Amino acid sequence: MASETVKLLGSWASPVVLRARIAFNIKSVAYEFVEENFAAKSDLLLKSNPLYKKVPVIIHNQNPVCESLLIVQYIDEVWTSGPAIMPAHPYDRAIHRFWATYIDDTWFPKLQTVATAEDEEARKAAIGEVEEGLGVLEGAFQSCSKGKKFFGGERMGFLDIALGCFMAWIRVTETFNRIKFLDEAKVPGLANWAEDFCTDDAVKDVMPSTEKLGEFAMKIFTHMKPQS
Amino acid sequence: MASETVKLLGSWASPVVLRARIAFNIKSVAYEFVEENFAAKSDLLLKSNPLYKKVPVIIHNQNPVCESLLIVQYIDEVWTSGPAIMPAHPYDRAIHRFWATYIDDTWFPKLQTVATAEDEEARKAAIGEVEEGLGVLEGAFQSCSKGKKFFGGERMGFLDIALGCFMAWIRVTETFNRIKFLDEAKVPGLANWAEDFCTDDAVKDVMPSTEKLGEFAMKIFTHMKPQS
Repeated sequence: MASETVKLLGSWASPVVLRARIAFNIKSVAYEFVEENFAAKSDLLLKSNPLYKKVPVIIHNQNPVCESLLIVQYIDEVWTSGPAIMPAHPYDRAIHRFWATYIDDTWFPKLQTVATAEDEEARKAAIGEVEEGLGVLEGAFQSCSKGKKFFGGERMGFLDIALGCFMAWIRVTETFNRIKFLDEAKVPGLANWAEDFCTDDAVKDVMPSTEKLGEFAMKIFTHMKPQS
Repeated sequence: MASETVKLLGSWASPVVLRARIAFNIKSVAYEFVEENFAAKSDLLLKSNPLYKKVPVIIHNQNPVCESLLIVQYIDEVWTSGPAIMPAHPYDRAIHRFWATYIDDTWFPKLQTVATAEDEEARKAAIGEVEEGLGVLEGAFQSCSKGKKFFGGERMGFLDIALGCFMAWIRVTETFNRIKFLDEAKVPGLANWAEDFCTDDAVKDVMPSTEKLGEFAMKIFTHMKPQS
C-alpha cells in the first residue's frame, strides 16, 4: 500500500501511548509520531477524539482509532503479516482482554494514587494495593505463560503490552518510594518477565528511562518526590 | 461437539447477562441458564469469577469467561458458523468496541443515577446527562448503520447488543420518570432501532417486560418509584 499513511498522536511520557508504539514495532509498521502538547491540544487531536480528547490516537488513512487497547487490537487485525499480538485461541484472547481491563480499571489507578496521595497513610495504603494487585497479576502470569517468557508464551502478546507499558512508571515509583514492587521473592514470574519485556527489540528503544521520566514526574505530581 | 457443555451464570434482570443470551441466540447455541441468587452467590460463581464475583459468567467445557463484552466476543470467535456479531472490517470493529466501552463506562452509570439519585436536582441532572449521551449515540448510530436498521448494518452486531441490552431498563426509567428518552423527534435513528432491536428473534423472548422489571426495580432501588 504505497499511499498508506499512519500517524500516532501521543506523548513520550504516556504509558498507554507506548502500547501503540510497541504494537507498531512488533508489526514493523512505519508511522509518524506527533508529540501532543497537553496545555494546547492540537486541532487534529480534538477532531480525532472529540469525546475524550486524549492520546493515543492513531490515524490510519484518515481514519482515527482511539483508546490504547483498541488500537493494539486494530493494529493486530490490520497488519496481519507481522507476528500475531492477540493469542490464537478465543479462550486465551478472552483471558488476555480480561486482565488488560483489570490493569486499566483497577490496578493502574492504584499506582497513580501512590504519586498523588495526600498523606503518608494514603501513600502506604496505595503501595499495599499495588503490591496486592501485582500478586494477582503474578497468578495470571503463571497461568498464561505456562513456563514461557511472556504472558503470550514464547512471544510478546496483548497482555504483555497492556502491563509492560507501565514498566518505566513502576520503576520511577519504586525509586521515589524506596521500595521494590517487582521483587523476585514475592512475584518471581513478573520480576523475570519485566527484564525480558524491557530488553525486547520492540520495546527497548521506545521505553523512557527511569531518570528522564522521574524528572518529568516531579514536575507533574507536586507530591511526587524521592522519599527521605 | 457431542460432549460440549455451555453454562451461563446470570440473573434475569441483569442487562449485561442479556448480552450473553442474545449472542447465544444469534449463534443458535444451546446453553444451561443458572439463575444466581445475589444474597447467596453460588460456589460455582465465586470459583469462576473470584476477582469480581459478578454475573454474567459463561462456562464452556469447564473454562469460565467473565465480563459481558468479552463473553460476546468469545461467543462470536468460538461459534463461527453462526452469523457474525463483530463487524468484518477491523476499523468497524474498533468503532463498535469504542462505543460499547463508552456505554458501559460513561452512559449507563448516568442511567443508574436516575434511579439512585438522592434528590430531585440530582435526578434531573442525571436525566439530562442520559439524554445528552443518547444524542452522542444517535450520531454513532447514523455513522455506523449507514441507513440500515442496525449499528451492525443489515444484521444486529456487537454494538447493537451492547446498547440494546439496556432497553428494558430504559423503558422502566422512562415510565417511572414520565419521560421519553427514545423520542423520535430527538433521536430518530435510535427510536426506530429500539423497535427493531426488541422485536428481533434473538431478543424478543429474553428481554424482560417493562412491568416485571419495574416491580423488581421498586424492590432494589428504594428511591425508584413512579413520579407523581
